[in-house]
This record gives sequence, C-alpha cells and structure tokens, in this order.
Amino acid sequence: MSEKRILILLAPGYEELEAVAVIDILRRAGLQVIAAGTVSGPVPSARDVMIVPDKTLDEVMDERFDLIVLPGGLDATESLANDARVIDLLKKQIGGGRFVGAICAAPTILDRHGLARDKIVTCHPVCRASIKEARLAEDQVVQDGLLITSQGPGTAIEFGLKLVDLLAGREKMQEVGHGLLAEVG
Amino acid sequence: MSEKRILILLAPGYEELEAVAVIDILRRAGLQVIAAGTVSGPVPSARDVMIVPDKTLDEVMDERFDLIVLPGGLDATESLANDARVIDLLKKQIGGGRFVGAICAAPTILDRHGLARDKIVTCHPVCRASIKEARLAEDQVVQDGLLITSQGPGTAIEFGLKLVDLLAGREKMQEVGHGLLAEVG
Repeated sequence: MSEKRILILLAPGYEELEAVAVIDILRRAGLQVIAAGTVSGPVPSARDVMIVPDKTLDEVMDERFDLIVLPGGLDATESLANDARVIDLLKKQIGGGRFVGAICAAPTILDRHGLARDKIVTCHPVCRASIKEARLAEDQVVQDGLLITSQGPGTAIEFGLKLVDLLAGREKMQEVGHGLLAEVG
Repeated sequence: MSEKRILILLAPGYEELEAVAVIDILRRAGLQVIAAGTVSGPVPSARDVMIVPDKTLDEVMDERFDLIVLPGGLDATESLANDARVIDLLKKQIGGGRFVGAICAAPTILDRHGLARDKIVTCHPVCRASIKEARLAEDQVVQDGLLITSQGPGTAIEFGLKLVDLLAGREKMQEVGHGLLAEVG
C-alpha cells in the first residue's frame, strides 16, 4: 500500500455518491483513505445513507495528509464552511503546499475563506454564482496548483481518477479506470 | 413521494459506488428505497465503507417491492448467491412479475439460480465466463423483461437512471440526470 494518506470529510448532508466514489477509487489505487466525520457516530448523507466514518475529525486534527477531499451536498458544504476546525485544517493544508480536492458545492468553501483567490476552479452549475474570488472554468475536473475541483455526482469518477493520477501516477489511474469500466482521459 | 418501493440488498463486500449510486439516484426520483443488510449492524463494503442499512433482510422478507436491486462486489455476490432467503425472494419477485436489477458480478446470481434462462443480460467483463444460461450483450445497461442488468461502477449512474425511467418515467429520469450532471440517454 502507498504511504500517501488522504482525508475525506463527512459532514451531515454530504453527497453520498461523490463521497463514496472518491473513497472507493482512491482505495482501489492502494492509497490510504481516512473518512472522518465532523460529528461522532454514523453520519447521514444528503439522502439518508448512514456511513460510519473511520475516525472523527477531532481524532485527526494533528495528522498530516497529502490530500484533503471535500465532497459536496448543500447542507454539508454549509456545515464545513462554518466549522472552524475545517477552515483551520484547510489553511494549514494549502499553506503547507499540500493538495485539496473539492466537488459540487464544496469549492465554494474554499472561495468563501480566501483559499481560491484568482485560482481557476469549477463547481456545480447551481453554485457558480457563489464563487466570488476564484475564476470559473466549465471543465468537469480542473486542477490549478494545489486545488482540484469538480462539478457533481456525474463527474465524481473522473474527479477520483484525477486524484489517483496526481498521487499514484497515470499507470495506476489507467488500471483503476479499467476495473471501474470508466472512460480514462 | 412515489408509492413505488425498492429493496437494495447489502451483503458484506458489496461494491460501494454501485450501491450508493442506486440509492442516491432512486431517492432523488422520490422513490422509496430500503437498503437491507443480510447481516445485522453496519455492513462493510468491498473497500471497507461501513453503511448502516435501513433494515435487516429478515425484517423485510414478507414485504412487497416493485424492484429488488443487487449491487456487485465479488464477495457480496458469492454471499447473496448462497443465501437461501435471497434466492427465495428473487424467485417470488420474478414469479410475481416484478423487476430485479443486478449490476457488475450480481447478474451471475440470477444465472446460477435459473432466473435468467435465455434472457439477454450484461455484467462486468471479468464475470462473463460465469454466465451459462443467459445470453450476453455488450451494452452498458440491458433490460430484458423483468431483468435490468449493468456492467460496473462506471455504468452505475446509467443503471440507476434506467431504473428511474422504468419506475418513475422518462421526465423524472431526465430531471434527476440533469441534477447529477449525467448524460441522459
């Protein structure tokens, strides 16, 4: 297994397909994924799928991750954007030169907290008007420096594969994409 | 909310992206989805996502569903194929003229138990050799009578949308597909 470590944050109301696609795909690539709940116990998704996280956010606050992923979901996005622990973690992550991935509504969290200023990002079409400081692109997955952003459930597999490409290389990405029966760019 | 009721079976080792995509998409369409665990407590997916099912299989054995969905995952497929309760449920479902959906490795369950004889099905390419009585198609999603089958994680959204089309109509399918940012056929 790779030594690369990924944190994915589950706040109540996360978009379940986006969260699970990323966990599944990164684990298929042999990466160490920790799903951390911002609350204790099982965390309900946007449509009431109850997932038991591997850890709570409090348990991993002092750990170092190569990538932090923010799944979408409107309620989860609002919750993450208002969670001082999350903003602290994201500031340290970017300040430390490490990757942050955000999909669907979640790129707005970065924008609201000055973490995407002048960066090119994408997000779900319904959230585009909330992006104030970043520059919007229409691609399904966009990387600009440390930020990798994507649009929604329908682009979650491509987003996951882009993260694999970044952390485990193109060959691993192609291998995982092949097993998923996904189009590999 | 629609009165249409769907049962999705979670046995240890289910392919998490396939299971969650179907639950998410059918709930977005306003359909009543019950995720039932074949074991009690949280059920681990193929890559250790722990989902707390809505019910146990034992609790729903006497209930009537318009559709029963079998997600893939090799271990889950083996487990479901060897579970007398599941086979009993599937025989009654098909005997009663009601739908069964199966994706990835799961179509082999139907084939092994004489439930897909001479039907056109599809499945994950690695499982094609296990299909003995059904006829194989190469399409991403195939419907033949009461059976709807699909190939893997990369086709799970299309599979979910096909099930919405079947139970809630084309307009609802298009509306849900639009929100997902998925290609709608």
